[in-house]
Amino acid sequence: MPTLEGRQSVLAALQARQRRFEVILVAHGAHVEKLQEMLDVAGEMNVPVKQVERRELDAMSHGATHGGVVAIVTAKPRMSPAKLLEMVDRLSRPPLLLLLEGVDDARNLGFTLRSAEALGVDAVLIKKHLWDFDETEVARPASGAYERLPLVQIDTIDPLRELQRRNVRIYGCIAGAKRTIYERDLTRPVLLAIGGEKRGLSGAVREICDRFVTIPTVGGASSLSLSHAGAIVLAEAHRQRIRKREDANAASAD
Amino acid sequence: MPTLEGRQSVLAALQARQRRFEVILVAHGAHVEKLQEMLDVAGEMNVPVKQVERRELDAMSHGATHGGVVAIVTAKPRMSPAKLLEMVDRLSRPPLLLLLEGVDDARNLGFTLRSAEALGVDAVLIKKHLWDFDETEVARPASGAYERLPLVQIDTIDPLRELQRRNVRIYGCIAGAKRTIYERDLTRPVLLAIGGEKRGLSGAVREICDRFVTIPTVGGASSLSLSHAGAIVLAEAHRQRIRKREDANAASAD
Repeated sequence: MPTLEGRQSVLAALQARQRRFEVILVAHGAHVEKLQEMLDVAGEMNVPVKQVERRELDAMSHGATHGGVVAIVTAKPRMSPAKLLEMVDRLSRPPLLLLLEGVDDARNLGFTLRSAEALGVDAVLIKKHLWDFDETEVARPASGAYERLPLVQIDTIDPLRELQRRNVRIYGCIAGAKRTIYERDLTRPVLLAIGGEKRGLSGAVREICDRFVTIPTVGGASSLSLSHAGAIVLAEAHRQRIRKREDANAASAD
Repeated sequence: MPTLEGRQSVLAALQARQRRFEVILVAHGAHVEKLQEMLDVAGEMNVPVKQVERRELDAMSHGATHGGVVAIVTAKPRMSPAKLLEMVDRLSRPPLLLLLEGVDDARNLGFTLRSAEALGVDAVLIKKHLWDFDETEVARPASGAYERLPLVQIDTIDPLRELQRRNVRIYGCIAGAKRTIYERDLTRPVLLAIGGEKRGLSGAVREICDRFVTIPTVGGASSLSLSHAGAIVLAEAHRQRIRKREDANAASAD
């Protein structure tokens, strides 16, 4: 069974209520004050907590960063494409979705999930055959977002077509697109597709994109990395959405 | 002497003309077509190129990512605070400067330099005692930006005061500031100060900040990482500057 390491990861997973907890192991001599919030939540959820020797935790964890806490849990469930469509139908605001293609590094994926959550993304889609990551390596830089954010693995582009039928536009982020992210309306229902640094977006995804957008950069510089391009595009969508809400509030106050 | 690994790093350093090259070592049997551009530039600059056994390169490099090319070079020179002030005086556009405090990871620093270059930053300032990185580890994710971007190590905050005297405003990026990056004029001469995830900006830097700004994020999510927050703030400065130029061009066309 998968493990979670460190009180922050364990607390985030408890609060996200997506995994089942077998047991939380706490090292003898761990600072109880620091763990209190986690222990309280575990208590409320009737998750068993067991004290063990620190060396047992060292033996079962990836690094020395567990800080005296390891939980044995079920894997984080993926959201199915059908559930994603249900969620999109149910959302009271225009959905903001992110599709990642060609991520080649667990850390960069983790950071991207963290930015995605902070900037209001409703779900992240990843092609199933591209998911080849150690969950713990993704979860650490994601800082809790991995536990909370709906993650959808897709086999084919069919779910993308279903999203289009629901009025979600697919915007492909590519270098050299004519329009910038600042010239497109990102306040409508939208899925932003971002490709990896080596190959960019696949032909199959490019073909069904409704529009393409680019991040303006300075000539002569290298391109942005996937996770940083993602953060910038999502921040722009978030900016436009905040502004639209403010404009609507100002109008209704008149 | 420091080394550079891989043809991309070596080519970027040759073109940036900031380091002196002792020699470029190329493995017997390396793909010459792929190296042609680098070899041409080396030839123009009279840098000696020597063929060696691949295992010699393996022994002197950090990983197996050299791809048959290692250069022996001088360290990348830092820009002195005095030179920075000269540059600021000389620039024909409002300077965009970045101050990083509390970066704790060479990779994240490298990615930040890459974003900074792509988004038009003129120089990056780092406190001297916080620079404790392996140059090769910073350079790799920076993808050439490390070679090209002026990097200033400062001992005290005196250079920041000198910048203020030159009309450069210092904007501290902190969580919970009243105004967002979208509500501030980032088109004027500006230094953006970003702190690390653990401690944020130091008291000394906070004290001389002219203004504070924040990136709006969704409640309940974790904060953005330093390098992603940096990319978003810099992209916003770049967006405002592009827009101002466009507005000026449109006005002059009237």
